[in-house]
Amino acid sequence: MNTNLYDYAYELEKAMRSSDEFKHLQEMYKSVTNDSEASQMFDEFRNVQMQLQQKQMQGYDITEDEVMRAQEIANRAQENEKVTMLMEAEQRMSMTITELNKIIMKPLDDLYGSMA
Amino acid sequence: MNTNLYDYAYELEKAMRSSDEFKHLQEMYKSVTNDSEASQMFDEFRNVQMQLQQKQMQGYDITEDEVMRAQEIANRAQENEKVTMLMEAEQRMSMTITELNKIIMKPLDDLYGSMA
Ligand SMILES: [Ca+2]
Ligand SMILES: [Ca+2]
Repeated sequence: MNTNLYDYAYELEKAMRSSDEFKHLQEMYKSVTNDSEASQMFDEFRNVQMQLQQKQMQGYDITEDEVMRAQEIANRAQENEKVTMLMEAEQRMSMTITELNKIIMKPLDDLYGSMA
Repeated sequence: MNTNLYDYAYELEKAMRSSDEFKHLQEMYKSVTNDSEASQMFDEFRNVQMQLQQKQMQGYDITEDEVMRAQEIANRAQENEKVTMLMEAEQRMSMTITELNKIIMKPLDDLYGSMA
């Protein structure tokens, strides 16, 4: 075990928790959860997204009706400003995580790339 | 942008590169790539795994013949000690990465968990 390696991960975790992106995401979540209309829309949106993703991962086809229903729910959710701001905050957090992962996984990319 | 956050990621990347798990993985890779028999078996094994994964992700069914062929290739590859040691090194690296990710993603788990 590399105690050291985990120490660096814990440092990054602390930095993550106090980052602007994360604090903004927390606030946007709070603003949605404290508003029953917004939170209902957001839950509905998230549930339908998850259902479609699961079907896709299990190799099932997604029907045109399902796509249309998901689109309707997404459109409705996006009419709520609190929900829209939460989605944007999630998007930003997700982009940051992608960047962090690229940095951390660079050693493996280098190694595998050198084999190709 | 949180320069700070990325600084911590770069620190973790350096720690990753100098970790026992990564250095061991590098050595095992070298031992396979320097041995044409081992590297051929390993490439064949990796290719068949990737093909099946891609089919699965695209929602195609995997035939019994394909499973049997993949199993044969895996069995043959595992008879080579260098290949086996590389697979074990990859497994260990992968477990370490899973642990690191759990640590780093804890703030998000906490946030999403608190909503459920
Ligand atoms: Ca709620
Ligand atoms: Ca080779």
